Amino acid sequence: MPLFIVRHQHAPETCPAADPDHGADLLNHLSRPNVRKHGVTMRAEAVVRGEHTVYLIVEAAGQDQVLDFMAPFALAGSLDVYPASTCAGVVSRGGCGASDAPEDDAMPALDPEEACQQAIEDGLVVHRAHPLNGEISIPDLIGGIVMPNARFYIRNHFQIPKLDRETWRLRVHGLVDNPLSLSWRDIANLPAQSRLVTLECAGNGRSTMEPKTSGEQWNLGAVSTAEWTGVPLLEVLQRAGVQPSAQHIVFRGADSGLVDGHSSPVLFERSLSIDEARFSETLLAYAMNGEALPLQHGFPLRVIVPSWYAVASVKWLTEIEVIDRPFEAFYQTERYYIDHQVDGRVEREPVRLQRVRSLITEPAPHSSVERGELVVRGVAWSGAAPIAGVKVKLNEGPWLEARLLGDRKRHSWQWWELLTRVEVPGNCVIRARAADLDGRVQPESPEWNHFGYCNNALRPVHVVVR
Amino acid sequence: MPLFIVRHQHAPETCPAADPDHGADLLNHLSRPNVRKHGVTMRAEAVVRGEHTVYLIVEAAGQDQVLDFMAPFALAGSLDVYPASTCAGVVSRGGCGASDAPEDDAMPALDPEEACQQAIEDGLVVHRAHPLNGEISIPDLIGGIVMPNARFYIRNHFQIPKLDRETWRLRVHGLVDNPLSLSWRDIANLPAQSRLVTLECAGNGRSTMEPKTSGEQWNLGAVSTAEWTGVPLLEVLQRAGVQPSAQHIVFRGADSGLVDGHSSPVLFERSLSIDEARFSETLLAYAMNGEALPLQHGFPLRVIVPSWYAVASVKWLTEIEVIDRPFEAFYQTERYYIDHQVDGRVEREPVRLQRVRSLITEPAPHSSVERGELVVRGVAWSGAAPIAGVKVKLNEGPWLEARLLGDRKRHSWQWWELLTRVEVPGNCVIRARAADLDGRVQPESPEWNHFGYCNNALRPVHVVVR
Repeated sequence: MPLFIVRHQHAPETCPAADPDHGADLLNHLSRPNVRKHGVTMRAEAVVRGEHTVYLIVEAAGQDQVLDFMAPFALAGSLDVYPASTCAGVVSRGGCGASDAPEDDAMPALDPEEACQQAIEDGLVVHRAHPLNGEISIPDLIGGIVMPNARFYIRNHFQIPKLDRETWRLRVHGLVDNPLSLSWRDIANLPAQSRLVTLECAGNGRSTMEPKTSGEQWNLGAVSTAEWTGVPLLEVLQRAGVQPSAQHIVFRGADSGLVDGHSSPVLFERSLSIDEARFSETLLAYAMNGEALPLQHGFPLRVIVPSWYAVASVKWLTEIEVIDRPFEAFYQTERYYIDHQVDGRVEREPVRLQRVRSLITEPAPHSSVERGELVVRGVAWSGAAPIAGVKVKLNEGPWLEARLLGDRKRHSWQWWELLTRVEVPGNCVIRARAADLDGRVQPESPEWNHFGYCNNALRPVHVVVR
Repeated sequence: MPLFIVRHQHAPETCPAADPDHGADLLNHLSRPNVRKHGVTMRAEAVVRGEHTVYLIVEAAGQDQVLDFMAPFALAGSLDVYPASTCAGVVSRGGCGASDAPEDDAMPALDPEEACQQAIEDGLVVHRAHPLNGEISIPDLIGGIVMPNARFYIRNHFQIPKLDRETWRLRVHGLVDNPLSLSWRDIANLPAQSRLVTLECAGNGRSTMEPKTSGEQWNLGAVSTAEWTGVPLLEVLQRAGVQPSAQHIVFRGADSGLVDGHSSPVLFERSLSIDEARFSETLLAYAMNGEALPLQHGFPLRVIVPSWYAVASVKWLTEIEVIDRPFEAFYQTERYYIDHQVDGRVEREPVRLQRVRSLITEPAPHSSVERGELVVRGVAWSGAAPIAGVKVKLNEGPWLEARLLGDRKRHSWQWWELLTRVEVPGNCVIRARAADLDGRVQPESPEWNHFGYCNNALRPVHVVVR
């Protein structure tokens, strides 16, 4: 968008900022949501000390939008608006006096520099800038089921599409009676649901697999919980009218790119069987913790398959296709499976439900704790069933039953805590072990597999008792 | 960090951007990592079209850092550096000409400029910069029970204390067997609970009271919901050992200041009766939506009295005192009550439980909607009981029953939605009316009272059908 420099000056005796009500009005006028309503983006504003002169650097479609937005300032004094460009723009065009360069027509995407900078400022541990992958810092978790959107882990395979909600469509086609092309408004007009769902990357914990496997070396923080709001998948399928021959539902995102072993770009696409789609409480989500989905989490619409590893929860959803056979695609059949040796043969088990797991959030690894009262806290979850209990063990002591906080959760993690005492100074190893209501228990060590998926082994935390 | 406006001009014939090498040097000089090396933060930069003039808005520890960083530009032409501040800073100080507010040595406080700027950037509608009061924008609510901390409404009576968690103590004294002085660590070592609680300012909706009353003119957005994590009040009282003669529990915050009619500063302090403390599920909260309490919401510890108007939920808690008589204090007995005329006498009813209320979040007031499908959505809550139902009426049509989303909530708002149709173009007035399980129903018009509290009247939303 074109850039402008704006200058406003007023007389000291009529300084609007000296009147609390007028001042507050101007501040609200400058607030981001209000600025946006005028089709303007504020880059920065500054008032010269003691001179009653304000400079703004803004973006807008044109000078008229800027003049319209600045009208309250024009009433209070003088106003000058100068068309401008960035230094990079000037240099790339060949000087301050040269004219504009043409726009890039390729798929609009979030600026990787900007996205990465934001993730770092929000406190994520960034593994890779492009595609952007970052995990949460476990000791930063303090109670609460949901996590702030800015601190939710980020997992991308390609660049982050920047879709326009006004022109975006969700196509529903294949074996359906009424193929659909739904606008954003159509989706918003369908019945809404909100669900608390924990998403976990199938590669979470990969960094402790021995021998090392390829793939992002996630520690433990590729997991987060949010309250997702959207339309139940079944509402959309019902309107489309799924035909009796249908077997699988394919979800296609707007993200794509080159991968090893393929000469042309692959799409990010995944499928669920009809029964999985029917019984998984899958949501097509447009909001995350009460805010529109952030770009990096799939704006404007993403799939949320509760209790599954997050690979199933396709972001930037643009297409649902109903087919009569199992789906084959790179992220469906060439990745996200575990090889098992069965009677000398290799059998592939696709990555589906999240395995039972606990994390210790407190105390922090390698911290020192005082002798006396000690609290061990954390979260636990399992895709197959609610958490039955969490046991905690200090050094070679007995397994102690932790207290589960709040009601049992079906699709999201559950907090637990153990109030205990440590009396002996020195090293202390704390272990936590979760079990679910279907009898699954966290293993002592990970089941190694080629791509390093589904590592739900115990992860001891070492502290020093002073 | 101090803010500066920088202006650089050069002659057209020596335009550095016209020389590719010199131009690239300047761009690299302006890159974020390089800027940061000079101890400078770039807020924005813009070159005036055709004028060979660059403006930068930057932050730096001092003017010397800016001059040092700008040296390559000074070589290419002129350079002017002006000390500046943000618009929020100017308004919170009382005008462009006013000087910095003096620091208060007694009580470190959050910089009002910084706090106000943050609130504005986060999208709050700011009513006053100092003390900072801001409400949420209702049409920005999209599903989800909790709201992001940054978008939670802010209500202050005085400046915002900036307490140090390491030296902070919670004193528990008065009629107790074991007076306590609890450190942050002591509090963290007690059993934790998380609760979803809606807080609402007693003055929410005051702006529609006729005749006008004094006090912040809140529209409808002085209400928000969070998941609070902390220690049940009863855990602390149990450890202190409340004596049989105890009648009331006083909560004292660290905030204080001058109020009308009092010559010396008053403290922010409130009380609950022993029974209210026992049965209200009151929490001493240190986390909000999984993050440490933000400064403006009471860091490090605040009271959360579920279902009560938020005045009871004392922030920056430093003291709990147990007494044997009703408590008298400015915010307990001189404010936050409603006058009733009973048999010619005036009776004061203290502000306690939130009255039953609904908000329409969608469609937005004064928006235009298309003929055909229409969704009306919103939230509803009542301090006395869960919401029984919400009815919606379009123009003079019948009251239609909306659908409640999710489980019934005890202490937090509940989403509802009505999927309907509008066929007639023109003005449409949408009304929503909530009822709770104890039979309370929202009134058509507010009960006027001197301070403008507890206005839970219907609030029609006007839209235009195209």
